[in-house]
Amino acid sequence: MIVVMKPGASQRQIDHIIERVEQLGLRSHVIVGTERTVIAALGEKRDGAKQALETGEGVEKVVPILAPFKMASTEVKQQRTEVKANGLSVGGKRIGVIAGPCSVESREQILEIAEIVREAGATGLRGGAFKPRTSPYSFQGMKEKGLQLLAEARAKTGLSIVTEVMAPEHIKMVAGYADVLQVGARNMQNYPLLEAVGESNLPVLLKRGPSATMEEFLLAAEYILKQGNTQVMLCERGIRTFEDHTRFTLPLATVPFLHQTTHLPVVPSHGTGKASLVATMARAAIAAGADGLMVEVHPDPEKALSDGFQALTPPAFRQMMAECRQIAAAVGRDL
Amino acid sequence: MIVVMKPGASQRQIDHIIERVEQLGLRSHVIVGTERTVIAALGEKRDGAKQALETGEGVEKVVPILAPFKMASTEVKQQRTEVKANGLSVGGKRIGVIAGPCSVESREQILEIAEIVREAGATGLRGGAFKPRTSPYSFQGMKEKGLQLLAEARAKTGLSIVTEVMAPEHIKMVAGYADVLQVGARNMQNYPLLEAVGESNLPVLLKRGPSATMEEFLLAAEYILKQGNTQVMLCERGIRTFEDHTRFTLPLATVPFLHQTTHLPVVPSHGTGKASLVATMARAAIAAGADGLMVEVHPDPEKALSDGFQALTPPAFRQMMAECRQIAAAVGRDL
Amino acid sequence: MIVVMKPGASQRQIDHIIERVEQLGLRSHVIVGTERTVIAALGEKRDGAKQALETGEGVEKVVPILAPFKMASTEVKQQRTEVKANGLSVGGKRIGVIAGPCSVESREQILEIAEIVREAGATGLRGGAFKPRTSPYSFQGMKEKGLQLLAEARAKTGLSIVTEVMAPEHIKMVAGYADVLQVGARNMQNYPLLEAVGESNLPVLLKRGPSATMEEFLLAAEYILKQGNTQVMLCERGIRTFEDHTRFTLPLATVPFLHQTTHLPVVPSHGTGKASLVATMARAAIAAGADGLMVEVHPDPEKALSDGFQALTPPAFRQMMAECRQIAAAVGRDL
Amino acid sequence: MIVVMKPGASQRQIDHIIERVEQLGLRSHVIVGTERTVIAALGEKRDGAKQALETGEGVEKVVPILAPFKMASTEVKQQRTEVKANGLSVGGKRIGVIAGPCSVESREQILEIAEIVREAGATGLRGGAFKPRTSPYSFQGMKEKGLQLLAEARAKTGLSIVTEVMAPEHIKMVAGYADVLQVGARNMQNYPLLEAVGESNLPVLLKRGPSATMEEFLLAAEYILKQGNTQVMLCERGIRTFEDHTRFTLPLATVPFLHQTTHLPVVPSHGTGKASLVATMARAAIAAGADGLMVEVHPDPEKALSDGFQALTPPAFRQMMAECRQIAAAVGRDL
Repeated sequence: MIVVMKPGASQRQIDHIIERVEQLGLRSHVIVGTERTVIAALGEKRDGAKQALETGEGVEKVVPILAPFKMASTEVKQQRTEVKANGLSVGGKRIGVIAGPCSVESREQILEIAEIVREAGATGLRGGAFKPRTSPYSFQGMKEKGLQLLAEARAKTGLSIVTEVMAPEHIKMVAGYADVLQVGARNMQNYPLLEAVGESNLPVLLKRGPSATMEEFLLAAEYILKQGNTQVMLCERGIRTFEDHTRFTLPLATVPFLHQTTHLPVVPSHGTGKASLVATMARAAIAAGADGLMVEVHPDPEKALSDGFQALTPPAFRQMMAECRQIAAAVGRDL
Repeated sequence: MIVVMKPGASQRQIDHIIERVEQLGLRSHVIVGTERTVIAALGEKRDGAKQALETGEGVEKVVPILAPFKMASTEVKQQRTEVKANGLSVGGKRIGVIAGPCSVESREQILEIAEIVREAGATGLRGGAFKPRTSPYSFQGMKEKGLQLLAEARAKTGLSIVTEVMAPEHIKMVAGYADVLQVGARNMQNYPLLEAVGESNLPVLLKRGPSATMEEFLLAAEYILKQGNTQVMLCERGIRTFEDHTRFTLPLATVPFLHQTTHLPVVPSHGTGKASLVATMARAAIAAGADGLMVEVHPDPEKALSDGFQALTPPAFRQMMAECRQIAAAVGRDL
Repeated sequence: MIVVMKPGASQRQIDHIIERVEQLGLRSHVIVGTERTVIAALGEKRDGAKQALETGEGVEKVVPILAPFKMASTEVKQQRTEVKANGLSVGGKRIGVIAGPCSVESREQILEIAEIVREAGATGLRGGAFKPRTSPYSFQGMKEKGLQLLAEARAKTGLSIVTEVMAPEHIKMVAGYADVLQVGARNMQNYPLLEAVGESNLPVLLKRGPSATMEEFLLAAEYILKQGNTQVMLCERGIRTFEDHTRFTLPLATVPFLHQTTHLPVVPSHGTGKASLVATMARAAIAAGADGLMVEVHPDPEKALSDGFQALTPPAFRQMMAECRQIAAAVGRDL
Repeated sequence: MIVVMKPGASQRQIDHIIERVEQLGLRSHVIVGTERTVIAALGEKRDGAKQALETGEGVEKVVPILAPFKMASTEVKQQRTEVKANGLSVGGKRIGVIAGPCSVESREQILEIAEIVREAGATGLRGGAFKPRTSPYSFQGMKEKGLQLLAEARAKTGLSIVTEVMAPEHIKMVAGYADVLQVGARNMQNYPLLEAVGESNLPVLLKRGPSATMEEFLLAAEYILKQGNTQVMLCERGIRTFEDHTRFTLPLATVPFLHQTTHLPVVPSHGTGKASLVATMARAAIAAGADGLMVEVHPDPEKALSDGFQALTPPAFRQMMAECRQIAAAVGRDL
């Protein structure tokens, strides 16, 4: 950590910071520059040290040197993590595609879609049974009945089930039916939930919150890893910006950035929120090195109970898969 | 709702949308313009109608006319809501000030701060016992022990206790000690939690999420109101933008905007995250019409276990209160 | 245009708006809904009508139906525009790659880089002679001497020269040496400059401003088109968001979105501002359908006089080109 | 400057950076930490050094210690700058109010408004004669005729004229009529224009660009100061964020932040872009310490040729002034 003193900081203020650094169990190293004094604080990273120091009198700013996450970091584990959940595998040579409706709506709907996406090459089936909705007046999902239908779809197709869990008290129930627990973007910093999925023994798909930095995203993953669950997929689903022609801005540079920073696999989703852009961005995601993809498919999007505007029709999904396969081959992956 | 068809939409596509509008229980009204056809869908607002229509073939966009929230709206209730929690009152002529440390750290600390803020004119005491922290390695709060200390501080000072609740299963415990349940910014869209605080009979302080629009913020409040709990305060704590000289950008125009849109009281906080800016922004907030204020106070910020960088020292808090009192008088309020 | 009246708007207010609509040369069409009255204003789009109406008493909002740009729109011209500047062609089957240093620094530097990028398959040579720099203390470019060196590089390699013009009074000079005039992101809304490049007879590469919406970007292009210059390339170079792990957030969904909205070709650049991410994002851009690419190449990035941190070394550029060629083939393009 | 090496950086890489630091004329100082090596580069700040170093092999990041602006900084000049332009004075005890229409539209309009704002207490008259407009189809201003009308209004009222200049070649003409040259937000990084207004001997009102950081804003001011023109006012007019209930987000914390960072006076404007919010935010701005205010006034906003939606009517302006006077008194200022 580097403590930068204000120009004109007094010797008393500098001495005080040196004393504080040492009280925090760190070694201090003073550098007197032409205009300012800088104090390096060396040693094992200590959470809280940064803020303790930056409130000191005469301090201009404190610059951390080490990333605050550990278990998620490539510094700690260089071998890439491959997440496996029955037939779905994400993080190896093969790109895992998770497809399905926004919400489970009926037995016919989910079984039909499951068959379609399996035939087209998906290995995971998504479908919400517990749906976090912006409005309390919107359809909130079929709850356990939806989970049962997902399990039935798995039995028929062999697809792995990826479904959202919204509260710690639901985990046991959801885990009874699902192969992967999804933590939604709205819950990326719901720490009791992160700890609870960390204690489960199911793989987790963690969605990035719409205003989360990479550091916050990886610290959220760290909450899960810290409980002993190493099977975490990072889902880039887009961020909130001033852009109004898409629902979220999908910043695909997070894919190569995360590949440099963490060993966890990266799975972009249909973040633009516009069906007409989803397939093109899926191709781009694979070209950027995505380990998996998550997209929505619905046989009749205009009758979907939620988010039909971003769902692909079955023919559009098949075409997307064919195109993505070409791109995957061009970057040395399978799909 | 206004459905705008693409230029060149076919009559068949137009007819299909008219049919869909009617299937959704709405009346359709077609307007043929010089370059496009527009279909108005009239009737009671129906959630899901917008997205059902916007996935239709030949549709360019769907423009909603009505706000999606109801109970929070000034259209439904014009009389301003005044939230009362023992001595703390927010939404009337008197501005309620909620002050205290980020976290409860010890008996001495919380009792000392409680006395200081009460003397300076605060009527609410804040202090975290359950702390949502970005890093799993940070101090997570004293939990129930912290709540007991808050209750002790109340007994000595008469201040109302405002403290965060992070999970539905903690509400009963927290409600046993607190006067106001705080829902943190990270949990603004944690719907099970919103519903649970809605079912409690305590007032709620709901913090705006860092990327929440006004519509999302008011729909989050609607989740609480819908459970029958009408005592909701809206806390503007700043948004995530590209600005890097503050922790969050504090957009004070939300204060007058919310006053036009909702009857719920508005309480800005120390959103800039920099102690050197907090007092000035508190003055600005009151000039903008704030119904309350939330700020952090710590007797020794550099030894605070969390967020010391944004805490005022006792003298700084006293000065802030004196200045705010002047501004309150200038806008016809008391403090 | 749709004028939405406030709930409770009086008949007098409604009548006034109807009168205003007609004064503006539009036809009015009133729709009385269950909670609000809406007035459609039909006819040729009239600039200024929106804001004239939205200041009316009793008006809640005005929703425009038509896009404000015309000549840039696929509604007006459906055939895709192919921009040609000597050997560089952008917008056809072949993807045009524009590569070179941030700044022209010396005769040796620019001739060496020109040779390298030509061999690797680029058809355009970039290089700044007039450099807009955030700090007045930074290197500002070699000015006309730099242009002469670019022209010499063209003579030796046949590459088309793409270089920035910062002021109308420089256009004549720059046009004496360059094949394409670049308008930088900082100048995207410098209207005298846009009009001046519109009056030149050289193709223009227009960079998106860091906070420009698609509508603003296309209206900036419209300024150029309106002067009779139809040879405009749109360069997506990234936007300003809260993300801090890249210099700009590169929102590649603009590529397919612009392909749906305008006939002008789209050329993403090295927007992440990090050399380690540039090649991967170039692949992704091509998968997203980019018509061209703009990247920086420098033989010794750490000695570059500007922006070395985002420049590829010659070997990295060659590898990027090889990878991009694979992706181009996968999407049916040449490179 | 602090150069942070990657974990595992080789001694050869470290030695290379030390050599580079010294080649750049700086002294190096190596600190070996538990996990990383850090190299401090000491000496006079050298532009370009940061980027030269951060492209070095084995370098993780380079952290600058000194702000890149000098003349704008309170480190260089501690005495606050007071800008004076005839009757308008900004930066002293008295708050200067600049009011008037978005555009000069006619002799009657500008003379009427000038009289109104003068009577209410404004000392500056704004009014655009050259108007940068997002759409090329919008009203672009009356040009020199508008300037003549502004000068006539000054002759009648004594108000100082503040008007925008869009291009260096117009400065001579505009300076013939105006008292203050305004540089618009779209031109904040139009460096030839900044240098040209820097060479004029008129005070400058520099508007913040919608995505400019504080550092970029102050460096833009530095371009003007560097030419010898010390009379610069900084106008905070709002930033582009995801918020959609205002035109721009007005981040008033820039007022106290700039007061800590620069000696130049700060003048917030009607940045929310909504007439119903302007007066409230003007009060908040003054409570935040604003040295001046810029607002739009129009006798008949719905007939304004530009931006009527954010203009106050004369009665609303008078009321705003009365309220602001109360707030000014509460913070020890006059208005």
